[in-house]
Amino acid sequence: MLSTYKESIDKALDAYLASLPNYPIYDPIRYIVSLGGKRFRSSLTLMISELFCGNPLLAINEAMAIELFHNFTLIHDDIMDEASLRRGHETVHKKWSNNEAILSGDLLYAVVNKLLATSEVTSSEIQTLFHQTAIEVCEGQAMDMDFENRSDVSVDEYLLMIKLKTAVLVACALKIGALIGGSKDIDADQLYEFGINLGVAFQIHDDILDVYPNHSSFGKKVGGDIIEEKKTILYISLLNNASKSEMDLLNKLYSSKAKNSEVIISEVKKMYEKYDVLSVANKEKDKYHLAALSNIENLSIDQSNKNRLISFAQDLMTRNF
Amino acid sequence: MLSTYKESIDKALDAYLASLPNYPIYDPIRYIVSLGGKRFRSSLTLMISELFCGNPLLAINEAMAIELFHNFTLIHDDIMDEASLRRGHETVHKKWSNNEAILSGDLLYAVVNKLLATSEVTSSEIQTLFHQTAIEVCEGQAMDMDFENRSDVSVDEYLLMIKLKTAVLVACALKIGALIGGSKDIDADQLYEFGINLGVAFQIHDDILDVYPNHSSFGKKVGGDIIEEKKTILYISLLNNASKSEMDLLNKLYSSKAKNSEVIISEVKKMYEKYDVLSVANKEKDKYHLAALSNIENLSIDQSNKNRLISFAQDLMTRNF
Repeated sequence: MLSTYKESIDKALDAYLASLPNYPIYDPIRYIVSLGGKRFRSSLTLMISELFCGNPLLAINEAMAIELFHNFTLIHDDIMDEASLRRGHETVHKKWSNNEAILSGDLLYAVVNKLLATSEVTSSEIQTLFHQTAIEVCEGQAMDMDFENRSDVSVDEYLLMIKLKTAVLVACALKIGALIGGSKDIDADQLYEFGINLGVAFQIHDDILDVYPNHSSFGKKVGGDIIEEKKTILYISLLNNASKSEMDLLNKLYSSKAKNSEVIISEVKKMYEKYDVLSVANKEKDKYHLAALSNIENLSIDQSNKNRLISFAQDLMTRNF
Repeated sequence: MLSTYKESIDKALDAYLASLPNYPIYDPIRYIVSLGGKRFRSSLTLMISELFCGNPLLAINEAMAIELFHNFTLIHDDIMDEASLRRGHETVHKKWSNNEAILSGDLLYAVVNKLLATSEVTSSEIQTLFHQTAIEVCEGQAMDMDFENRSDVSVDEYLLMIKLKTAVLVACALKIGALIGGSKDIDADQLYEFGINLGVAFQIHDDILDVYPNHSSFGKKVGGDIIEEKKTILYISLLNNASKSEMDLLNKLYSSKAKNSEVIISEVKKMYEKYDVLSVANKEKDKYHLAALSNIENLSIDQSNKNRLISFAQDLMTRNF
């Protein structure tokens, strides 16, 4: 349902990137944006702007800023995670170098800031929200990095981490759309909360899909997060429950030189089932999903628009990709 | 003459940094700022604000933003340069890790953006100038990195690089002070040009001091840039003039496993003298210094304030540190 907005954003991004200088340090910027993506966050900005003022494109600069900021974080996150692939293509630091990835990321962030500052519909409130969001995204990434070295992460800490790392940018995208569309303050704030709740639910859903894919996820590799020992809500719940001997087994599996992926996935899944971590995850997901739906109910918009947002939230929670 | 401003800035920075959250990812930020520095750029902002409106502290948030932005670039530049020391202390990426240096740098930049967006005296013009400057600083750093792999850099390319990497932030600091102080547009623009010319002259002066220190630079290691094979204006001028056999000698000296610093410095200095590269450098420095002085003449401020700026420019050009 967001495909029209995605088209608008891709078109605007193409034109904007073409207007930037041709120095080689802009190449990684054009590259990462060209790898595509669902433009999910920025589409929300356009959709909400349209909902309140009838004109999605009034918020096109802010939508681009959100999308480009997201791409900046991907460039730097991929360095930190030592990731080789992004959307099936080489990551920036692999295709160029760590230094060029650091610097082109910094440059992209500077470009975002200028885009936002020169937008005709910008306001001090929009700018402050955007920059506070950027701060929180960095704080969330710091928590995520910290989790890598810890086995005592609580579910509450995890929820705070994904709120900061993922949900605040979704919330920011929605609220900026509302502010530009001229919504009441109370609606803009409800949409922000909707974004937080939806973003958290979405990330938990993502954690679950990695291990328990929907019937139509044919061909997708199952258990990638398990192999990388990612601190998902499932794995954290397991670590919170595992016995001493199970912890020893996990350590042995992950530290073994000849790491056997199939064995690791199968052993971890056995423990997931023993402690029913899927229920823990689903309970949290449903809690945030319900909270998101109640945020929509609280909006002072007509029912057909509420239904649109409800069906959007529903789509997101049953997605298979 | 900038010491009173430096005190104001250090005090404001202390209070501001104390107000930030206590998460560990803020530690590298507090650390790099605590290493000190002359607060040269930010002092200019306060001085110029005072010159036009009598109140230096009206620009304190922007002065802090400029200083903190500069510190952000230092964190990331030190990763890219693989530098171990910054102001005699461990660099952030050495004391923590590359990942924490990347992320705390990103966070610091986000903090800067918020500080600037929430300042009471901010304007769209100030924000656009600041963010355009950040873009240019990244472009300059990209040129500098590119120069490392080239032996055919021209003096003009070098001048453009230091203009972007160094001078634009000095110019931005001055112009923001003027805009906040309520100067005429024409004066704000002259001060910007003054900053560009002064910044370029200052960087050339720095290149020269490394090899030909003033009498009072007692104890400072001479020739550090030569050892690092840095593309200073002196070295670039040499590369533009050296014969085939001299190029071979340079390659041999720098690629030798048992690199002998004394020999390298002495051989390179011999070639510097042969091609009189010091004259090339001094000629460029004087050109930019004179242009800076003529920018001051063009300002519509009283002579005593002009004299202050002239004496400041003079101090900078005879500094020994």
